[in-house]
Amino acid sequence: MDPHRLYEIRCPVHGFVALNDWERQIIAQPAFQRLRRIRQLAWTDQVYPGAMHTRFEHSLGVMHTASLLYDSIVRNARAVLHAELGYDDAGFARNRQLVRLAALVHDVGHSPFSHASEELFPDQDNGGGKHTHEQYSAAIVRGPLRDAIQEHKLNQGNYGFTADDVAALIEGSAGAKQGIFWRDLITGQMDADRMDYLLRDSHHSGVHYGRFDLHRLISTVTAMTGVENGPPRLGIEEGGWHSAEALVLARYFMFTQVYFHKTRVAYDIHLREAMKELLPGGHFPKPIPGELEEYLRWDDWRVLGLLASGQGGAHGARLASRNHYRLAYRTSEIQSEADRLKLLRVREALGEVIAAEMPAGKSWYKKDDTDIAVFGEREGQQRVAPLSVYSTVVRHLGINDQVLLYCLPERKSEADKKVKEALHGLE
Amino acid sequence: MDPHRLYEIRCPVHGFVALNDWERQIIAQPAFQRLRRIRQLAWTDQVYPGAMHTRFEHSLGVMHTASLLYDSIVRNARAVLHAELGYDDAGFARNRQLVRLAALVHDVGHSPFSHASEELFPDQDNGGGKHTHEQYSAAIVRGPLRDAIQEHKLNQGNYGFTADDVAALIEGSAGAKQGIFWRDLITGQMDADRMDYLLRDSHHSGVHYGRFDLHRLISTVTAMTGVENGPPRLGIEEGGWHSAEALVLARYFMFTQVYFHKTRVAYDIHLREAMKELLPGGHFPKPIPGELEEYLRWDDWRVLGLLASGQGGAHGARLASRNHYRLAYRTSEIQSEADRLKLLRVREALGEVIAAEMPAGKSWYKKDDTDIAVFGEREGQQRVAPLSVYSTVVRHLGINDQVLLYCLPERKSEADKKVKEALHGLE
Amino acid sequence: MDPHRLYEIRCPVHGFVALNDWERQIIAQPAFQRLRRIRQLAWTDQVYPGAMHTRFEHSLGVMHTASLLYDSIVRNARAVLHAELGYDDAGFARNRQLVRLAALVHDVGHSPFSHASEELFPDQDNGGGKHTHEQYSAAIVRGPLRDAIQEHKLNQGNYGFTADDVAALIEGSAGAKQGIFWRDLITGQMDADRMDYLLRDSHHSGVHYGRFDLHRLISTVTAMTGVENGPPRLGIEEGGWHSAEALVLARYFMFTQVYFHKTRVAYDIHLREAMKELLPGGHFPKPIPGELEEYLRWDDWRVLGLLASGQGGAHGARLASRNHYRLAYRTSEIQSEADRLKLLRVREALGEVIAAEMPAGKSWYKKDDTDIAVFGEREGQQRVAPLSVYSTVVRHLGINDQVLLYCLPERKSEADKKVKEALHGLE
Amino acid sequence: MDPHRLYEIRCPVHGFVALNDWERQIIAQPAFQRLRRIRQLAWTDQVYPGAMHTRFEHSLGVMHTASLLYDSIVRNARAVLHAELGYDDAGFARNRQLVRLAALVHDVGHSPFSHASEELFPDQDNGGGKHTHEQYSAAIVRGPLRDAIQEHKLNQGNYGFTADDVAALIEGSAGAKQGIFWRDLITGQMDADRMDYLLRDSHHSGVHYGRFDLHRLISTVTAMTGVENGPPRLGIEEGGWHSAEALVLARYFMFTQVYFHKTRVAYDIHLREAMKELLPGGHFPKPIPGELEEYLRWDDWRVLGLLASGQGGAHGARLASRNHYRLAYRTSEIQSEADRLKLLRVREALGEVIAAEMPAGKSWYKKDDTDIAVFGEREGQQRVAPLSVYSTVVRHLGINDQVLLYCLPERKSEADKKVKEALHGLE
Repeated sequence: MDPHRLYEIRCPVHGFVALNDWERQIIAQPAFQRLRRIRQLAWTDQVYPGAMHTRFEHSLGVMHTASLLYDSIVRNARAVLHAELGYDDAGFARNRQLVRLAALVHDVGHSPFSHASEELFPDQDNGGGKHTHEQYSAAIVRGPLRDAIQEHKLNQGNYGFTADDVAALIEGSAGAKQGIFWRDLITGQMDADRMDYLLRDSHHSGVHYGRFDLHRLISTVTAMTGVENGPPRLGIEEGGWHSAEALVLARYFMFTQVYFHKTRVAYDIHLREAMKELLPGGHFPKPIPGELEEYLRWDDWRVLGLLASGQGGAHGARLASRNHYRLAYRTSEIQSEADRLKLLRVREALGEVIAAEMPAGKSWYKKDDTDIAVFGEREGQQRVAPLSVYSTVVRHLGINDQVLLYCLPERKSEADKKVKEALHGLE
Repeated sequence: MDPHRLYEIRCPVHGFVALNDWERQIIAQPAFQRLRRIRQLAWTDQVYPGAMHTRFEHSLGVMHTASLLYDSIVRNARAVLHAELGYDDAGFARNRQLVRLAALVHDVGHSPFSHASEELFPDQDNGGGKHTHEQYSAAIVRGPLRDAIQEHKLNQGNYGFTADDVAALIEGSAGAKQGIFWRDLITGQMDADRMDYLLRDSHHSGVHYGRFDLHRLISTVTAMTGVENGPPRLGIEEGGWHSAEALVLARYFMFTQVYFHKTRVAYDIHLREAMKELLPGGHFPKPIPGELEEYLRWDDWRVLGLLASGQGGAHGARLASRNHYRLAYRTSEIQSEADRLKLLRVREALGEVIAAEMPAGKSWYKKDDTDIAVFGEREGQQRVAPLSVYSTVVRHLGINDQVLLYCLPERKSEADKKVKEALHGLE
Repeated sequence: MDPHRLYEIRCPVHGFVALNDWERQIIAQPAFQRLRRIRQLAWTDQVYPGAMHTRFEHSLGVMHTASLLYDSIVRNARAVLHAELGYDDAGFARNRQLVRLAALVHDVGHSPFSHASEELFPDQDNGGGKHTHEQYSAAIVRGPLRDAIQEHKLNQGNYGFTADDVAALIEGSAGAKQGIFWRDLITGQMDADRMDYLLRDSHHSGVHYGRFDLHRLISTVTAMTGVENGPPRLGIEEGGWHSAEALVLARYFMFTQVYFHKTRVAYDIHLREAMKELLPGGHFPKPIPGELEEYLRWDDWRVLGLLASGQGGAHGARLASRNHYRLAYRTSEIQSEADRLKLLRVREALGEVIAAEMPAGKSWYKKDDTDIAVFGEREGQQRVAPLSVYSTVVRHLGINDQVLLYCLPERKSEADKKVKEALHGLE
Repeated sequence: MDPHRLYEIRCPVHGFVALNDWERQIIAQPAFQRLRRIRQLAWTDQVYPGAMHTRFEHSLGVMHTASLLYDSIVRNARAVLHAELGYDDAGFARNRQLVRLAALVHDVGHSPFSHASEELFPDQDNGGGKHTHEQYSAAIVRGPLRDAIQEHKLNQGNYGFTADDVAALIEGSAGAKQGIFWRDLITGQMDADRMDYLLRDSHHSGVHYGRFDLHRLISTVTAMTGVENGPPRLGIEEGGWHSAEALVLARYFMFTQVYFHKTRVAYDIHLREAMKELLPGGHFPKPIPGELEEYLRWDDWRVLGLLASGQGGAHGARLASRNHYRLAYRTSEIQSEADRLKLLRVREALGEVIAAEMPAGKSWYKKDDTDIAVFGEREGQQRVAPLSVYSTVVRHLGINDQVLLYCLPERKSEADKKVKEALHGLE
């Protein structure tokens, strides 16, 4: 078998994703193939029937997009990287491969239905809160994927990466050393992950909101000399700030139209609660040897099979019969003082009629995500400013702190009546 | 609840699919929701990772496309239908709704992984060979979907359709009476089913082969006075024959590139054989009351769950480990005499090394599918001729009678050697 | 010739534009065919080479989009229109046709290179400022297009429209009577014109910014009972406010990336000045009989021919040699106080080095364009609020008051130096 | 000015076309800018209003596509090229740049309205028939473009190409030496020209026929060792033959639907005849110094200006009034013996009613264009076979020898009657 052979996999977003034999061997591992059984958007297909796509497909797309970003940065800022990180041709090739590997496997730790079930991760022993899916990804890289990563001829003959090198980059831990510089391409303000999922979720669901100009955006990504001997920084050229703004807005629209759709959110609640029933102890096994194998046995299909066989408790039954919670009240997306007062009154009026409450903040939406560094020049001096200085739109986008209140379907009329009374005369 | 309310569901192929409350109630039935758990292309995602879409999404698309076809035919041939079928406005509205219902539910009878498992349908009691998925669809319409079809106010107030009316149209049985005229829109030479799946499979898998000009094609579909007091016939206007030709070629390309892809076909074999293990008696329950309920419990998820738990025998194990049969030999797509001789020699040489043999003809590919009626005019007389008279391409497309021979992965080298010896000196 | 025959014209944005024989006769008039020789975006192809499309193609698209909007409003608010405007079936059909005609011809009055040369319209006799392109359109409707509009059998047998009826709707004058209600579909907050040009300019230029969800937006457009016996109002359903927001943002992006691109703006200046040279008296003929015929002889081709033959003065020479003005300075898109001070200093420092100054406000960008009525419900009462109350993004979009300062190419270095000195220490 | 600076130009087909400063300087030459005034499809916009695009845009696309092809061949067959053509890294870079330059300028010699007016090229002095547009392109490269090609630092510092090197590659003359190997990428069975125009014509006109899978096709293009010390040959890998087949079919559909559309062909006739009137002596100036400058002054705009001013004779008048020839008769696209007999009879019956006759063969359609080399392997031996051996469809596609007969619009009824009589009883 020729270790240099290249492969291409069809991708409805990028056309083709090219990969080498090493990457293909990693993909062939059961721990990676499991991603074929984890859907990108959980039960979103109940609202958008086309949204059946998986994290497997997405992971290939992230590797591809990360490569495009990497290549563009090298094209735009080769001298900076050469000077500051000491890269020669070998270094450019080496870090490219490292970025590809980390991008490829960054999602292998996802739990069934992805974000819906992340609250069921067990507590860390160190008191640092719950485990994260990145920690699972890193553990899987160090465990089930270790050999596939370490033992391929392309690695042994050229780079000598350890599984730790890849895992450290995913975790953002110290062991990632210089490679850490590239972490932003995988988890950052404008990472390959986000670029890919916005386009892919748009494509399969059929909505036209998540689109931005991928190639224009990529071509403006660059690196700039760091301050006071700090590492170089990633950002975009000044001329590209509108395309970064378009990315932020694509995410804004996808959040309001798809990710935080009232019915989708209701199903997420039921999925989480049903899984709590299904999981021994109500939480996932830990990302440690001895438990990780069991963790990997959990995927969408297994859960769906259990639900179909009548398990999953009351919430499982709701899923099986599509008898989901109904929206009783929702605030504005960006609440004013008056909105907050109204929420208090509605909450009080509804009382135990509220079956669940879901704030947008609990979802993936954070304001600081929008601030991307823009590199300009003033009087011959490089100048860095956040995107929100350039963009009035981004500056005022505001934190989406919408709150959704749900009730049981059978109490929907009651809830409507109480909400109406509570708000009487208020607007 | 307003029975006249309209709904829209996003569709990545058609933008939006509009539906009325009656159709929505039918869709809400568990027997229809089951289509969310039957993928359109079985395990094709192993080759094209984006191809995760389901028969649920497709069924909505077929209803939509059938409506477009219906409306176009009425626009182009209102006078013919008025004269020959006696339609007034009420008749045009009535048959439109009937076509929509039949298109919507025509696939509800599909077994898990669709075509892969159709060979496991039980024999008919009347000696007429195996049951078909249309018979299952009709049985489900008459059973689990009966009430949703019959009891909606929109039906009772306007049409008075029985479940039998819909089922008969799907079966093509005598009970369909006049409605039978429209059956071609659902199962015919250029039906809504085919138009939708070609575009949808293209969209999700990311291949660019299955595309044709849907709107141009639809706008040329029409009806023509029948011969000798026969019923009117459906076909296309002469000016549109190239768009019909493009449909035929889209199917040709999708067959060679996707549907009959060697790896996909191998997985279909394993799926069929594994399911034979899983099914009591090696075949599905019958489409009769008492067994139909059990039939409906079979869906992709259930099978995948059983495979994951180690059931499904040797073939189930191959699926679980992706250790599928390997292609040992394949003939040309359209065999010459010499090709057929070579196949004989290869078959003999390989002997029991052949683990499975799959002819294209067993798949969905039939030559007569390509002959669509084209309505022209000669000397002021209407003239009907099949598309193959107009199109040299269609005339010579030929029957794809390719044969694929498979072997066990561990005997691939042995097979290669034997094939080489068998063919030595032959070309 | 069958007056009921329908036609279809290919459209890269909408697939097909359908039209009847009456509309086709209007299109066949030389005054309409002239739009084939007026490009939608003047010399934008110098920056985006694909942007060669014409107002002819756009006009067909506006008619198509206006019909989609009309049909959606009727679907959503038939009862309101029936009650408030007294429409029966005849009224719905009549006004639909009127909207189509007005949409089709609303741009026939455009001058060569469209907006670039509008400043060369002559003054109105009534002291009301310069003539507008709407006045030219109306004059052409009443003149060269009159017969084609009035004398078709479809008109005489069904509607009896006069050319005045169509012209009045375009002008928004009193004669439009009830039809005036529909004027917003042609010139308004979210008219068919804007929806079409954003998508079409995107398509041909290849930028991905001007896209929004046309079909979702259209499906939410509706009408609402007016206040205090006033006429009904057009707006969007509350559930659709995000798609209206997306339209506003599409326009924002297209403005910054395409319409107000520094090089495009420079060419607009040269085109205007060159045409001033070419036109007797420096302005266009008036929209009155006796002069209108001469006006219609002006189109892009004629101007280009004159430029090619060396006419057009200094600016014509710049166009011919692509030796356009260079950007010397530009402010932020939304100026702060500090920005305005800097502009003053730069302006002073540059003095006569400034060859031209172009404010965004002089282009097509007005804040009030963004405020679209949203129809909600509160405590069982209909409530109207502007889009900017719903959308934080729209509320803070701000007026783009960017100013571009240009200099001669040969003085670019001098200008750069002066700007740098003027701003020294300011940021 | 940094000679290494890179530029990107938006392209609606390819996203962005990247170019270096050298290429940009060539594009800036008036002889190249003239292509902005030569439309790709002449008056096709009369049928497909979106088809306003120019050879300028197309030329950039061909350079881009040729680079993709070049890079893919190098990736697939580096060893073959290394061995047979002696390429090292310098050779790979050098020939890539040469291919880009030749692709960029290969169309600069086109006459107004492209193919419509090629018959008006003057005779060659050597008795070798008419001049070709390639000869004009070569002459322009050696003349007006010489300095821009030869004197850029990127050339002088790295390659030392002469204008002759580029011209010889376009002409296919001996001076092209080794570079001749690459000529097929610019003018050949599956060249960059064809790939680009099919996609671009589809995009702007809005038809969906000219689409094929560009990236899949490109990825299968490769080179193979030549026979008996001959040069290597270009072709496609066996696995890609269906994508080459799809290219052939895309061209087939575009020919029948767009390029040979009856109305478009009529306008081509009028354009040619009107230009014959306009040109001194009825033919273009020669591609020789002293005449070439005058040749370059002919572009679409100049012709349109002359037509608008009433020149161009009877055909010019037809163009101005859109009073084009009407189709009196057309044969099948692929004529049988019976078809040929019918044509004879119709021709005789129509006699002088025939205003013009246009055979498809005179257009760009030749059968041998479809035969692309496919590289397979049999018994461990490389084997080359033409695409028509693989593809039944291509084998039977046949030569489109359709003939169109036109008459004056005012004699259309007369023609219809005569055709009917001539064919009476024949089918």
